Amino acid sequence: KSIGNQPGSMHLRKIDEPYSGKEFLQPKRYHAHVLGTSYVYDFPELFRQAVLLQWKKLAPGSKIPENFFSYNELIFDGSNVIEINREAGANQIGMVAFKVSAKTPEFPKGRQFIIVANDITFKIGSFGPQEDLFFYKVTELARKLGLPRIYLSANSGARIGLADDLVALFKVAWKQENKPEKGFEYIYVDNAGKETIDKSSVTQMITERATVNGEVRHIIKSITSDNAGVEALRGSGLIAGVTSRAYKDIFTITLVTARSVGIGAYLVRLGQRAIQVEGQPIILTGAPAINKLLGKEVYSSNLQLGGTSVMYRNGVSHQVASDDLNGVTKIMDWLSYVPAKRDSPLPILPSTDSWDREVSYYPPQQELYDCRWLIEGRELADGTFESGIFDKGSFVETLGGWAQTVVTGRARLGGIPFGVVSVEVKSVQNVIPADPANSDSVENLVNEAGQVWYPNSAFKTAQAIKDFNNGEQLPLMILANWRGFSGGQRDMFNEVLKYGAMIVDALTEYKQPMFIYIPPTGELRGGSWVVLDPTINEDFMEMYSDVDARHNILEPEGLVSIKFRKEKLLKTMARLDKPYADLKKKLSENDLSAEETAKLTEELNARQSKLLNIYHQLAVQFADLHDRAEIIEQKNIIKKALTLENSRRYFYWRIRRLLSENLYLNAINKNVKTSSKLERVSRLRANYPPSLDYDNDRAVAEWIEANGDKLNSYINNLKNEAIRQKLADTLRSN
Amino acid sequence: KSIGNQPGSMHLRKIDEPYSGKEFLQPKRYHAHVLGTSYVYDFPELFRQAVLLQWKKLAPGSKIPENFFSYNELIFDGSNVIEINREAGANQIGMVAFKVSAKTPEFPKGRQFIIVANDITFKIGSFGPQEDLFFYKVTELARKLGLPRIYLSANSGARIGLADDLVALFKVAWKQENKPEKGFEYIYVDNAGKETIDKSSVTQMITERATVNGEVRHIIKSITSDNAGVEALRGSGLIAGVTSRAYKDIFTITLVTARSVGIGAYLVRLGQRAIQVEGQPIILTGAPAINKLLGKEVYSSNLQLGGTSVMYRNGVSHQVASDDLNGVTKIMDWLSYVPAKRDSPLPILPSTDSWDREVSYYPPQQELYDCRWLIEGRELADGTFESGIFDKGSFVETLGGWAQTVVTGRARLGGIPFGVVSVEVKSVQNVIPADPANSDSVENLVNEAGQVWYPNSAFKTAQAIKDFNNGEQLPLMILANWRGFSGGQRDMFNEVLKYGAMIVDALTEYKQPMFIYIPPTGELRGGSWVVLDPTINEDFMEMYSDVDARHNILEPEGLVSIKFRKEKLLKTMARLDKPYADLKKKLSENDLSAEETAKLTEELNARQSKLLNIYHQLAVQFADLHDRAEIIEQKNIIKKALTLENSRRYFYWRIRRLLSENLYLNAINKNVKTSSKLERVSRLRANYPPSLDYDNDRAVAEWIEANGDKLNSYINNLKNEAIRQKLADTLRSN
Repeated sequence: KSIGNQPGSMHLRKIDEPYSGKEFLQPKRYHAHVLGTSYVYDFPELFRQAVLLQWKKLAPGSKIPENFFSYNELIFDGSNVIEINREAGANQIGMVAFKVSAKTPEFPKGRQFIIVANDITFKIGSFGPQEDLFFYKVTELARKLGLPRIYLSANSGARIGLADDLVALFKVAWKQENKPEKGFEYIYVDNAGKETIDKSSVTQMITERATVNGEVRHIIKSITSDNAGVEALRGSGLIAGVTSRAYKDIFTITLVTARSVGIGAYLVRLGQRAIQVEGQPIILTGAPAINKLLGKEVYSSNLQLGGTSVMYRNGVSHQVASDDLNGVTKIMDWLSYVPAKRDSPLPILPSTDSWDREVSYYPPQQELYDCRWLIEGRELADGTFESGIFDKGSFVETLGGWAQTVVTGRARLGGIPFGVVSVEVKSVQNVIPADPANSDSVENLVNEAGQVWYPNSAFKTAQAIKDFNNGEQLPLMILANWRGFSGGQRDMFNEVLKYGAMIVDALTEYKQPMFIYIPPTGELRGGSWVVLDPTINEDFMEMYSDVDARHNILEPEGLVSIKFRKEKLLKTMARLDKPYADLKKKLSENDLSAEETAKLTEELNARQSKLLNIYHQLAVQFADLHDRAEIIEQKNIIKKALTLENSRRYFYWRIRRLLSENLYLNAINKNVKTSSKLERVSRLRANYPPSLDYDNDRAVAEWIEANGDKLNSYINNLKNEAIRQKLADTLRSN
Repeated sequence: KSIGNQPGSMHLRKIDEPYSGKEFLQPKRYHAHVLGTSYVYDFPELFRQAVLLQWKKLAPGSKIPENFFSYNELIFDGSNVIEINREAGANQIGMVAFKVSAKTPEFPKGRQFIIVANDITFKIGSFGPQEDLFFYKVTELARKLGLPRIYLSANSGARIGLADDLVALFKVAWKQENKPEKGFEYIYVDNAGKETIDKSSVTQMITERATVNGEVRHIIKSITSDNAGVEALRGSGLIAGVTSRAYKDIFTITLVTARSVGIGAYLVRLGQRAIQVEGQPIILTGAPAINKLLGKEVYSSNLQLGGTSVMYRNGVSHQVASDDLNGVTKIMDWLSYVPAKRDSPLPILPSTDSWDREVSYYPPQQELYDCRWLIEGRELADGTFESGIFDKGSFVETLGGWAQTVVTGRARLGGIPFGVVSVEVKSVQNVIPADPANSDSVENLVNEAGQVWYPNSAFKTAQAIKDFNNGEQLPLMILANWRGFSGGQRDMFNEVLKYGAMIVDALTEYKQPMFIYIPPTGELRGGSWVVLDPTINEDFMEMYSDVDARHNILEPEGLVSIKFRKEKLLKTMARLDKPYADLKKKLSENDLSAEETAKLTEELNARQSKLLNIYHQLAVQFADLHDRAEIIEQKNIIKKALTLENSRRYFYWRIRRLLSENLYLNAINKNVKTSSKLERVSRLRANYPPSLDYDNDRAVAEWIEANGDKLNSYINNLKNEAIRQKLADTLRSN
């Protein structure tokens, strides 16, 4: 037993295990490098480097705290996952885990996370029952602690194998003794063989006793091996299930640092967030096996099946990394937007970009622009910077290779992290590759218009919203600018309705504040308004429109073509245009000669055709007046009509207020279970002084932040009240 | 005020409303028929007919109960949805609802459900704010009561419109007075016009006051109308959100009885289950509008965009109906598998097909067969019937037009309803239509092999599992027979990983008993086992394998090609084949001449090539012995090794036992919150008499069914204990 509380590095290892020399790891390190990845025990050092880089990037000039990075290995001692400090390479299974404490710019006092990783130098990183059980236990630990779980994927899928001890033992009943070429009847073991297997710790079998010519034979009916085959599949199911649950529960992310096969590929997807290192494929079946199946040499590399050209383009991989350090850095960057633990406050960075500034970028009318400029600004050729809504340089795009008409990622607003969804206004060419396995197929180029939701971009929107909500618990900003869903036959056939409905499903489940903001020169029409309307999740959604944005079911031209047709235009003309009205009146008089009638009709027609176009424009303008923000603000359909210039200031204090309020609303909810949001709000509001301007977000936010004590004691009273109530209920009901 | 409790038919209508003559509805009925649907008030009669048909089909010969069908209309009185009995056609908005009570064969004492329906004769069935609010309230009522909600969809999308009262009033500031053709500057109203609009109950506007040449003008800045436009969009969002929630909460189904446009189309999808009447399209944008956008006449009909040829083939529509009565009959048939209310017991029909029979159909080895035969049997040409696992004629397939390599639907086993997923063994041709909007595109034929999961069939599997779980609360049977997921480039690019992961996600959320059964001659390999392993949701999943089924990571040939290669084969040969061993031994002797060596080598090679093939077969057989059910039953990887013949008897008593047990396990869970399933089971088991054979499902089921009183009093004791505990906790914590 080791001295002190923490188990020493030789804990749980054999008594005669030798101490290792310094160069002991070189062969494994080399082995890992040949397979394209770092040795699993070298990853903590990469994380340390990445934390250092974070400090340099996010808090340049500030002093890095002492002991900013420490970690212990995690091992499973048969009943619990425990922390241990032992030398690298002491693992006896192909799965390794670490618990890391790191002081980062967003959490200078430290945050923790859990890493679980394949050791690809151990049985080529395959998943056997022991690896699966350990992966499961470590994930359950992360779920219990609410900590982020990082999976480093480098494997060969579930472990295949035969019962090797039986291979050396089995006997064969030939159809004709001494003529094996005539075939065999069954496989058996003799008494000695059966005894050996009965004692085996890995192989079990079921046999049927037979006596042939006085010889006792145990005919083999069924074999299993503890470490491979169906046993490994069962373990794979176990970790698939827990990863599916973990995604809903905690922050899960995977770095594909070497090939990820079968269950390895499924773990990548079940954890959803994925960063793929270039050159490392995510596959279900290797290229040689598929070639064999197809009966021809179709694929020359696994990268054709699951490289970044496939997996980044279809949104399985959220980001691409050039190497392991780059991948780990991207993970640490992602973590900087995410709470330290489940249900903990958001990480708020001291922002170098003041909340108190105007947004100087302004999207042009009728011109293409990059929606990223709206998010984080742009630098002009002459070096001047036009600022966006979010902090300069804070936007990290994810899923960028997939469905590019929608842009998704994370950004900060005055240091407060947001999930952001934005819309391209320009067309995007989507290349659908030819199918190598089908010689008739050709590459397909599909043009996807900006401001239109397609099946892929609707799916991407829903996926991003789910990622922000599950495990990241971020507020959401949708810079909404859609003319609708694509409703042509191709997209209807490609299930655009299903993916559009997924957006609604994702929004109904969202548990953080959401802002839908239609930016200037943007528009939101028909179906695309419907799937974003704040009534979908009233407790959390708020909708804003820029005074220079437009919204309605149809665009004005479309509306006029149905509701302000020629007949109505002429009626308006008769009302507003005196010459036309006069001609009409004259024509309706009774005592006109045929000649006069013809002449008047001609004049009337001339006037009509002269003015009809201008009256059409008038009608379009009239229709367009129905699409403005001011009146629907008055009617509470939108929360507020904004100007882009002031939007940053507005959203900054709005989110600061909502985040503070939600903290207490949640606490109220814990003690007054049945209350509606409205009731919770009015309970909280009763604490505010009458002099506080309830509609002033800044004033409310600052009051709450300054009066934490008062509110906490209110919550405590609620708690006591709840207990008293419980007591009374219990007494009454008994 | 009407006499008695129930409001009369003239409730809430104008005092001077005339009584209507008999033929009053004919114009509306005619109008609806022209649009291809029945008049909304005629649907209750269709439901009555459908219930009659159910009696004839499911309980032929039995007496139909008196008053087997009754209904009231539902209306919203401003604060509540109330039941009312008034004559047809009295609706003042374009949305109508009914609450129906029907005595059906599965619930002879009666079940209730709620119908909400567009009235397409009212403003072409468009959704305005009042329609939306009513739809919302009715859906919330159904959720509150836990009742099935049936939506009859026949509409024109969200209501578009202009502020009509303003059209007759507005004035125009022309650029040049008397020269309107030169254009206009703005639209305004004069004092009188403003006064009129200020008094309008539907139109609101924001104006800016200006004085031009002494004339007061109110320049119009923003207009809105209560009934259309953005107000209708907001209402659409409201009903989209509530329908998304309702799907997770209650049984939702939609009959597409006429065109369903925009929000109408989204409601179809958000409610998920959909039956589409032939000839009635589900669309987002009408064909004329798309043609206009494309600048050419691409589509001649809305059916090209959203007819059954599109929507049944892509799984938006679960079933297709020939007409309204057929559609309503299919709804009633579907309901016969579904509990009367949320969390109520399953509807169990007295079965005409005894549980106590063998399954006489047996799937052939290496031959194609229809997996539906396994489910419900088949009739041979000579009239003999080979029975399947489920009751004869009880299988109703859904999603049959989509991803046909997987077969999904509902069936009964001894009268107990199940959700069923099964697998085609034959190849299916999937026709991907050419895109009419792209003249370069061509129709694409994709061959999908049987027993393989593709992106579409994996999506379909997950969808079916969600449908069975949400609102239907059915036990699940998966007749699992997959060789794996398709891992070629096309399917990897088409996101097969995402849809495979969806299956895991759906299974983790399942709340009813699930049986995974690998049928005889079936197999389950690699990834397809992983996504179905019972450890994914241990509380509810059980896996079974037929003794004549196979399972492992790879198929034997594949395993041998990696783990039993030539070298190993020769080693085995040297062990088992004496002549070969002798030759080898001789060859290894030191004192051989070159000639002898050559001769012996030749003989050795000859023996080798003679036997190598047979030893390869031996190895394949040895590998195949690893794929059997018996040994993994012993190791508890599967619950049981079954024979198809006896599977029906087994599953019948197993599900009967589990359903009974779950009733009490749930009750225990309510009172002993923190307990694990294991703990709940042991608590329940403590009630069973020691003499009861715990592993005998029939004995346990019958004991529970006979001892309800005893178990209920146990649950009552638990309740009291929980209250005492609560009291003690409260006192201690205070």
